[in-house]
Amino acid sequence: MQKFKVTFYPDNKTVEVARDTTVLAAAISAGIYINSACGGEGVCGRCKVILKNGQVLSQSAGKITQEDKKRGIYLACISEVQSDLEIEIPAESRLNLEGLTQEEVNRRLKQNYSTPEEIEPVRGGLPESGFKHCPLTIKLYLELERPSLEDKISDLERLEREIEKVIKGISSLHSSLANIKPLSELLRDSEWKITVTLAKKNEAAEIMQVEPGNTSGNNFGVVFDIGTTTVSAQLIDLVNKKILGTKATYNKQAAFGSDVITRIIYAKDSDGLETLHGAVSEDMNEMAQGLAREHSVNLNDVTAVVCAGNTTMIHLLLRIDPTYIRKEPYVPTLNFVPLLRASEAELRVNPHGLLACVPGVSSYIGGDVTSGVLATGIYKEDTLSILIDIGTNGEVVLGNKDFLISAAASAGPAFEGSGVACGMRASKGAIQKVKISPEDLAVSFGAIGGVKPLGICGSGYIDVIAEMLKAALIGKNGKINDINHKRIRQGDNGGEFILVFKEDSGTGEDIIITDADIENLKRAKAAIYSAVSVLARHMGLELIQVEKFFIAGGFGTYLDIENAVNIGLLPDLRRERFVFVGNTSLSGARQIILSNEARKLADEIARKITYFELSVEAAYMDEYIAALFFPHTDLTLFPSLKISK
Amino acid sequence: MQKFKVTFYPDNKTVEVARDTTVLAAAISAGIYINSACGGEGVCGRCKVILKNGQVLSQSAGKITQEDKKRGIYLACISEVQSDLEIEIPAESRLNLEGLTQEEVNRRLKQNYSTPEEIEPVRGGLPESGFKHCPLTIKLYLELERPSLEDKISDLERLEREIEKVIKGISSLHSSLANIKPLSELLRDSEWKITVTLAKKNEAAEIMQVEPGNTSGNNFGVVFDIGTTTVSAQLIDLVNKKILGTKATYNKQAAFGSDVITRIIYAKDSDGLETLHGAVSEDMNEMAQGLAREHSVNLNDVTAVVCAGNTTMIHLLLRIDPTYIRKEPYVPTLNFVPLLRASEAELRVNPHGLLACVPGVSSYIGGDVTSGVLATGIYKEDTLSILIDIGTNGEVVLGNKDFLISAAASAGPAFEGSGVACGMRASKGAIQKVKISPEDLAVSFGAIGGVKPLGICGSGYIDVIAEMLKAALIGKNGKINDINHKRIRQGDNGGEFILVFKEDSGTGEDIIITDADIENLKRAKAAIYSAVSVLARHMGLELIQVEKFFIAGGFGTYLDIENAVNIGLLPDLRRERFVFVGNTSLSGARQIILSNEARKLADEIARKITYFELSVEAAYMDEYIAALFFPHTDLTLFPSLKISK
Repeated sequence: MQKFKVTFYPDNKTVEVARDTTVLAAAISAGIYINSACGGEGVCGRCKVILKNGQVLSQSAGKITQEDKKRGIYLACISEVQSDLEIEIPAESRLNLEGLTQEEVNRRLKQNYSTPEEIEPVRGGLPESGFKHCPLTIKLYLELERPSLEDKISDLERLEREIEKVIKGISSLHSSLANIKPLSELLRDSEWKITVTLAKKNEAAEIMQVEPGNTSGNNFGVVFDIGTTTVSAQLIDLVNKKILGTKATYNKQAAFGSDVITRIIYAKDSDGLETLHGAVSEDMNEMAQGLAREHSVNLNDVTAVVCAGNTTMIHLLLRIDPTYIRKEPYVPTLNFVPLLRASEAELRVNPHGLLACVPGVSSYIGGDVTSGVLATGIYKEDTLSILIDIGTNGEVVLGNKDFLISAAASAGPAFEGSGVACGMRASKGAIQKVKISPEDLAVSFGAIGGVKPLGICGSGYIDVIAEMLKAALIGKNGKINDINHKRIRQGDNGGEFILVFKEDSGTGEDIIITDADIENLKRAKAAIYSAVSVLARHMGLELIQVEKFFIAGGFGTYLDIENAVNIGLLPDLRRERFVFVGNTSLSGARQIILSNEARKLADEIARKITYFELSVEAAYMDEYIAALFFPHTDLTLFPSLKISK
Repeated sequence: MQKFKVTFYPDNKTVEVARDTTVLAAAISAGIYINSACGGEGVCGRCKVILKNGQVLSQSAGKITQEDKKRGIYLACISEVQSDLEIEIPAESRLNLEGLTQEEVNRRLKQNYSTPEEIEPVRGGLPESGFKHCPLTIKLYLELERPSLEDKISDLERLEREIEKVIKGISSLHSSLANIKPLSELLRDSEWKITVTLAKKNEAAEIMQVEPGNTSGNNFGVVFDIGTTTVSAQLIDLVNKKILGTKATYNKQAAFGSDVITRIIYAKDSDGLETLHGAVSEDMNEMAQGLAREHSVNLNDVTAVVCAGNTTMIHLLLRIDPTYIRKEPYVPTLNFVPLLRASEAELRVNPHGLLACVPGVSSYIGGDVTSGVLATGIYKEDTLSILIDIGTNGEVVLGNKDFLISAAASAGPAFEGSGVACGMRASKGAIQKVKISPEDLAVSFGAIGGVKPLGICGSGYIDVIAEMLKAALIGKNGKINDINHKRIRQGDNGGEFILVFKEDSGTGEDIIITDADIENLKRAKAAIYSAVSVLARHMGLELIQVEKFFIAGGFGTYLDIENAVNIGLLPDLRRERFVFVGNTSLSGARQIILSNEARKLADEIARKITYFELSVEAAYMDEYIAALFFPHTDLTLFPSLKISK
């Protein structure tokens, strides 16, 4: 088979690949991740690369314009290598979180409560959880009595006897053969002074590891939130209950499709499941290694891992076929994952290290939601709360201490910057804040990282639409009014509003919002609003009764509440009822790794949450259609907006 | 490295080995097992082979006589290959049970109670155990309800829900990732009709395997008794509580030493532990395969294995370093082995199949003894019982429902036919029954298999000594009287009595018993008798109070009780109190594989049995010295014998 060298710039990485390999696959094998929202179908047009040298065979033009062609632009996913190549990957085609400053990453991941007062009601975070400190794994330093003719029980029984002296109420102690084999030598070599790592599961416990000497101070865990788009990790000191560090990265699976459905389909390919598993586990290992290195922690001292993620992500992590998640009646292989070894998911921490996955509720309400309910504490409140997490999917939970009901809204990835003309994720160069002067339509904006703008992220779009409504550039139906102004023009997809002229943009092209984009965003906001509204109606409740409205996820970071209500994404509640709670999937996972009590509770919560299938509910379609206006058909639902009818 | 071909006859098997390989090692690599009681030290003289062609380098003459030399006889363990070789292995050098007829094997292994009346008090065997039928692994045929929008719990939860409907009182159900991965496809392909294999441990249970369709009728187990000398196996139908077949073979470890101490030392060699593990697991796999083939059982349907064996054998099976078993204070790595996968011991049954080891008491009282106590039921009787198992070691348990005390007597392997001039194991050609006419010293004997005799086995020696006592050929001290008779002569090791003249023997040499042999056998019987006696004394009891005296093991098969009392091996109880119970290690293992109740009880029994260390007990030495006479110094202990003082 003929092989060619492909060099990618500006990375300056070269790989050798077979003829007819796609440029996308070549990039992945070079460790470079390119956007590929459609899963390599040549449809989304997000994987544009510039051919500097060599020949490719491109199956179709795809979303390539005549001007693109002139500049040597091809879609990586449908262009096949025919010679040695030199390829440049533009910043906007790149899957990359590196562009974010550390501060921004932290802001997106840590408890980014908007004000200190909001920490209290959330009850998230460590100091407030109130759970008893009893981590998933415990290290005990023990000095055993030496055997004698008067006391000659076996080595293992001697160890167990000592453990049972220290930890009361263990009904059974288990040890693997791997730990038993070296035990006799180890006990004698260490002069009977050893540290045992224990995993306690209810009344049973397992001896995970026996180490010579006193290492009981070095016990660490890593918690992960595995999102469809972003994977986040925190390194936790299990002894001192401290967060040592936080990292986030794009989920490398995104190279194989931007949403869970595309990935479930991809998993059916011959090596698909293995590839998707490998992509996410590589992300996780890289972060775990990085965190360990930065905080001088030996990976061997990382004895526990807790993962929260949506149901598909957990299936893929564990190499479990997710096929039936997307087929009616939408049944996953499992929601409650047994306690595993981290090594079973190829996570490279202590070889005996444990892996707990936060239990999920259904195919579309995963452990990340359970984790969020745990972290926000809504399961124990008298008053009514809502938790929404708008990621690639939109999940909603409504409830209190008596009931918890959930739904998943197929919002589509518009708020994630996908399927919209100039959309991008909330990374460097994304416009996240917009003002439009109603007088002269002058646009002022803020872009992440303070660089020239590359595109618009979710919160940016919310601002744009809200501002366009205020400036009467669009009406309730979202159509751009055909005004004679340099910022307004007609394009292939109807009206277009130019937010940033190409002279000022980082891409050299106009940054625009189109009629089609607004339609997309309208559908997305309608899906979420109507999910919230139909859940309340189903329970015979009014949205006005909701005392706390928790907004989780990175989406909340830059969100302007007022604008979100203005466009009808969020209900018209008193503004102080909205609470940004950041990554609650990670917060809940952290509580679980630090407390068995929280772990048991997560199980109870997952069993308690009922799942409401919107797709088969007639009322949902009615609600959805009614919500396909800015802000809504029924303006009495938005009394504070005082909009003229 | 220079290589040579070594061909063994009459097997006609050829192997290629490096120069300087010992003939013993070459034979092992050809799959031929040769006696090697001393562990390859050139001391025991049991590995004689005949060099037919080629050259060997023999480090020392060892136990080779001038006549042996003329016949081309070498010791395999100290002879190194220097050229291509042709080697003949005489029958008496061979480790081989094949010589026994199936009937004899069965007789040695099955419940060979001497009379039907003895079955009742024994309470061994399946029909009498009274344990509830609840095997180690259970197969359940289930027809699951198909998922629907109204009933859409996950596949795993659906399976668990159905299991919990059938089996009540399960507190937790665990499943391995390996079983979860294929679950979704499997359930749908089999149209939700599946058979699940469960392992129940107290209130918890594990899903071991899920198979399509109804296979619940095919669930089998294998029980093993791993003796130092012999490994026995039974294939059990776990559904119908039936023994399908029985097999026994020599423990191939015997090629590396005849007793546990030699093997513990050998295990310290670089590959020693692995080699010893491999030898016994090969025995076990061969038997399991043979049994499965003969009874048309698929090895994949063998889901459970239970092993009983002495503590060293269990360590070696599991590749656990046994070093500290032989070092004061004689502490094993473990007595209670956690439930394992059979595959962890390289046992090739169902890949998820379980392995339970019967718990032991101490370094020298293993699970085989626990199993024997369980099978004989002595732990639940009001009256006092003794259980002895005379194998390569002699183990004694004394007790009733209130207490159980045990001791291990270092009897030495004389009763196993080792360390005595013409000793051999109770296999084909062994003299097992002897009569000597006091008038003319004519000898009549029975040899196993009805062939020309090759040597004398344990029960044969007991008869010989008893008969020599009766014929006044020896006195109480065991010295052969120097009578002028063709059967009596002086040899290198003192007096010799010729039992079979070379013309009538299968080896072409006289079969004799020497002063040294009798001394050896006297020490062995004294060790056992005094162990029994000191245990009773320690508990403040008289031996006469013992209502049942259970004799376990192959040794009992040919034993003449009267003669055994006559020589002072067994105490002088009413003869009907002696009960032969065959291989109770296997009987107990069978109860355990068929009933969780028995398994729990075995744990309790192992914890209840106290171990009495004879080697540090002054009284034991006194008792032992007093027993170094035939039958004993204190003849009042043997009132029924009416021996003139």
